[in-house]
Amino acid sequence: MYAAARAYTNIALIKYWGKKDEQLILPMNSSLSLTLDAFYTETSVEPLQGLHEDEVMMDGVLLSGASVAKINRFMNLVREKSGRHMFARIVTRNHVPVASGFASSASGFATLSAAAARAYGMDCSGAALSRLARRGSGSASRSIYGGFVKWMKGTDDASSYAVPVDPAKWPICLVSVAVNKQPKKISSREGMRRTVKTSSFYPVWIKEAERDLARIEPAIRKHDLDMVGKIAEANALKMHAAMLAADPPFTYWEEGTMTVMRCAVHLREQGIPCYFTMDAGPNVKLLCSEADVGRILEDLSEFFPSESLTVARPGPGVDYLKNPIQ
Amino acid sequence: MYAAARAYTNIALIKYWGKKDEQLILPMNSSLSLTLDAFYTETSVEPLQGLHEDEVMMDGVLLSGASVAKINRFMNLVREKSGRHMFARIVTRNHVPVASGFASSASGFATLSAAAARAYGMDCSGAALSRLARRGSGSASRSIYGGFVKWMKGTDDASSYAVPVDPAKWPICLVSVAVNKQPKKISSREGMRRTVKTSSFYPVWIKEAERDLARIEPAIRKHDLDMVGKIAEANALKMHAAMLAADPPFTYWEEGTMTVMRCAVHLREQGIPCYFTMDAGPNVKLLCSEADVGRILEDLSEFFPSESLTVARPGPGVDYLKNPIQ
Repeated sequence: MYAAARAYTNIALIKYWGKKDEQLILPMNSSLSLTLDAFYTETSVEPLQGLHEDEVMMDGVLLSGASVAKINRFMNLVREKSGRHMFARIVTRNHVPVASGFASSASGFATLSAAAARAYGMDCSGAALSRLARRGSGSASRSIYGGFVKWMKGTDDASSYAVPVDPAKWPICLVSVAVNKQPKKISSREGMRRTVKTSSFYPVWIKEAERDLARIEPAIRKHDLDMVGKIAEANALKMHAAMLAADPPFTYWEEGTMTVMRCAVHLREQGIPCYFTMDAGPNVKLLCSEADVGRILEDLSEFFPSESLTVARPGPGVDYLKNPIQ
Repeated sequence: MYAAARAYTNIALIKYWGKKDEQLILPMNSSLSLTLDAFYTETSVEPLQGLHEDEVMMDGVLLSGASVAKINRFMNLVREKSGRHMFARIVTRNHVPVASGFASSASGFATLSAAAARAYGMDCSGAALSRLARRGSGSASRSIYGGFVKWMKGTDDASSYAVPVDPAKWPICLVSVAVNKQPKKISSREGMRRTVKTSSFYPVWIKEAERDLARIEPAIRKHDLDMVGKIAEANALKMHAAMLAADPPFTYWEEGTMTVMRCAVHLREQGIPCYFTMDAGPNVKLLCSEADVGRILEDLSEFFPSESLTVARPGPGVDYLKNPIQ
């Protein structure tokens, strides 16, 4: 059966950093994100007789070799779980520009999970899709839902999945600043592994992340932007601090990262609530109020070209599509 | 009795960050530094009958009010310890340009301690001077000696002082990059206090600092620049990481700080041993081999004007002067 779906990117406010189980992608700590409306991936999956391998067309290009290996492994899992052994024709289109400063793996595996689950006749409930998406990319587990989403770390495959926390129907925005579009030198996977294995600060990070999560949930329910922003910013800094204590130490920060952080601090000194967060790269995202977006873009445009600035709003969860992916 | 002395700045390779006793300036961890030849302070102390307060002439200017308070407090301690109650005429000259990226408090209080101890007839042994200097500024305790110096944290006033570790008679250099000459927004004192009180990473920092110290001493004795540099760099990063986990979080880093760090990483990729360290400010110091200074300056001059670059070599300990301070 043919199935097509769409899922959106998300930004973690309480970060996922470190795996307890690299095979099952079970995280060391629970995390929390906001799904965004700006960028998404659309994917169709069609199991077909007669294929000798999965055929993956990404953004109009037929993938081969190493670039298709991660999707193959994921589809093998789908076949194993569904008991249906056909290979599939997969068509996927990323509406996540490289210059946006967002990774496409979260929206990519969330949408592939939804399309594959339906195409292979599997459980399509939110929890089931979240569990499945997690196996492709940890953060994809959260892109199944819209608004604020919590990924409960769990203790095994069955108990590690995301749940919606708040639909984010309040006027918050995320301004993304793409500081550097070059591919990073240290992948998230490698960065996590090194931090878990060698950072003396990592055990404290785990405790702090759980504590931050417990504090941010009530702040989200109260729609308290300042509290949400402060907790998220401090959480991001602690994650990056844990990397600085790794052996050998490393950082994803660059000059532009410092510039955006200083812009945020300066904006707050002017009374504008505006909080930064950064993932495994130099790019920075600013959480702010819808009303302040204009002023924030104005300040940032002193340092960054407009094409590196993107405004996103809370986005929806995964959805099925009627029309084929173009 | 009139006495005059000279002492040099030092750079910590294992950082001092946090006080166990703010009154006595007892540190939370032992630290280790290299005394440098580039910058120094000269100070004379002359106890005089008939003065109603200490008279402090700094760099040709008679100090008054708040700027003399710290020196007054220190001289009160000298009077209390010596049992001699005369006020003094103090003449001090800092050969530490603001643009150098070095603070003058270490050389300043080391030299004041030496001059005052002799002028007031006190114990002028190294340990006694180090203890006394510590009361003016923690890092001054280390500027009593030349070369590599360890400040043993101790448990009380008597046991907290510096000892020489190695005369540093090997061809090492320190290149200082003054990234920003503006006064910092958060003083060392305030930054330490906030980190000790609020950073969840701070207890780990303390353990790591003691561990780094135990590892750097044999590396110094072996004249192993790579090992010394790696330990020092990692130690500095952990100190700055502890600040990122403070509440509220803070950092002394700026864009230029990242630039120098990236230069160092790039130089190492070219096979040039070169390791960074940063204190309570955005400026960066690079530990390197004498032979590579030219190449390092060349690389840095792509990003920084030559007047912000200073080359320092291992320097001597405190010494008494025969001629008056000009």
